[in-house]
Amino acid sequence: MSKKPIGVFDSGIGGLTILKSLRRALPHERLIYFGDTANVPYGGKSKQAVTHLSMAVARFLESRDVKLIVVACNTASAQALGSLRKQLNVPVMGVIEPGAQCAVQSTRNHKIAVLGTQGTVESKAYLKAIQKRAPQTDVFQKACPLFVPLAEEGFANKPAAELIAREYLSPVQKSGADTVILGCTHYPILKDLIVRIMGPQVHLVDSADTLAQAVKLFLQEHHLAATTGKGGLKLYSSDAPKKFTASAQKVLGEQIPQTVLKKLNA
Amino acid sequence: MSKKPIGVFDSGIGGLTILKSLRRALPHERLIYFGDTANVPYGGKSKQAVTHLSMAVARFLESRDVKLIVVACNTASAQALGSLRKQLNVPVMGVIEPGAQCAVQSTRNHKIAVLGTQGTVESKAYLKAIQKRAPQTDVFQKACPLFVPLAEEGFANKPAAELIAREYLSPVQKSGADTVILGCTHYPILKDLIVRIMGPQVHLVDSADTLAQAVKLFLQEHHLAATTGKGGLKLYSSDAPKKFTASAQKVLGEQIPQTVLKKLNA
Repeated sequence: MSKKPIGVFDSGIGGLTILKSLRRALPHERLIYFGDTANVPYGGKSKQAVTHLSMAVARFLESRDVKLIVVACNTASAQALGSLRKQLNVPVMGVIEPGAQCAVQSTRNHKIAVLGTQGTVESKAYLKAIQKRAPQTDVFQKACPLFVPLAEEGFANKPAAELIAREYLSPVQKSGADTVILGCTHYPILKDLIVRIMGPQVHLVDSADTLAQAVKLFLQEHHLAATTGKGGLKLYSSDAPKKFTASAQKVLGEQIPQTVLKKLNA
Repeated sequence: MSKKPIGVFDSGIGGLTILKSLRRALPHERLIYFGDTANVPYGGKSKQAVTHLSMAVARFLESRDVKLIVVACNTASAQALGSLRKQLNVPVMGVIEPGAQCAVQSTRNHKIAVLGTQGTVESKAYLKAIQKRAPQTDVFQKACPLFVPLAEEGFANKPAAELIAREYLSPVQKSGADTVILGCTHYPILKDLIVRIMGPQVHLVDSADTLAQAVKLFLQEHHLAATTGKGGLKLYSSDAPKKFTASAQKVLGEQIPQTVLKKLNA
């Protein structure tokens, strides 16, 4: 076992849903979360820019002597995971593989839809991960760029969000997919709305719990899990740490320490 | 007169509307535009972060030997103009002062509303600029954070944009303002919608033409204007230059050169 912490990062607050699942699944672990709020959002940036920023965040986490880095952002997982794994000396896990695995196990009609940012959709990371596991699967991808700002501005339950979601999801319904991957850590905030539009027969894959279970398994298999102790949480953000603490408090629903401001060497 | 170029910058494509007005008002000038697309949007970032980025862009423009820097972004004008003026050796003009001046001249009932990003509203830059000129004016500010993503995603003419605009503008209507400042360079894209909701009796102040006239006057007064020659245009962006060229082509409606990728030393 290892008492070293686990590093987790996202472009902002989206990855906090994953952090929450990790806290629940791994109560003895010390978690360090980095929200790159100075550079949010990653979703519309080029692969080169996302890779550059992800590397800067990962280097910071590596300097904190973490035993594992969890990329709690679909865009960064889709675009930067390969580079991170090549250049870092700690293992790195992303959200794409566990999400694709869960979707492949869930689908009955071999039709899977992926909702994501522009960057995630253009990378085809989910498409490749699904077809590697189940080559006969039809994969329908749909970029939903307004979902992140709607979620961030608290418009998830307003009629405007429903109009926009109906427009984005109309071709997804026509695709006939019985399984839909919420391929962005913000999208669980719009889950109720997406269920209402897609109907209860469609299975939604939310990567947070799936990833947390994959992390747990990885730590056990590599004898890295912390099995005693009360665990802990440390938060960093690259801009506006007070606002970040408030968001984290809301998502995690537990008493948390103040976020520390840490500018990136990017 | 001076043949040196004028530097113009924004966090992304918003400032292109200002660039277009500058091209029209100053056909003999050489213009250098920098779109900081690696760091878009500025609207939700802290004052410290916006100042840091603005300074990096301005230093780059200064290195191109410009005679004037135009901050074609309301958030950067609101939060960073003082620092830029203190630390740079070239004159710097922003969008706030000309917009405030125009609104003060336009209002009949001494009630002015300002629509802007979170950063612009929190800075109270328009409020201060208006009350400096006309202390008895009531200024009502309203942050409209979803207007930028709606404009960027081409949703300006969709019913969802109208629902969101009606919600944002409801307290603005109640304020009784007869003059509304479009305090973000993206908002002119939503102008038709805002006019429809606010009614034709309300005067909308769009900073692009106002600022271009202020720049023209400044150059004449300081004997810096280029009065002959065919002018020119050079575009830089800090990420995704091809996408930027396409956007610029659309806004400017003229043949433009390819955008050059230039990473910031920020």
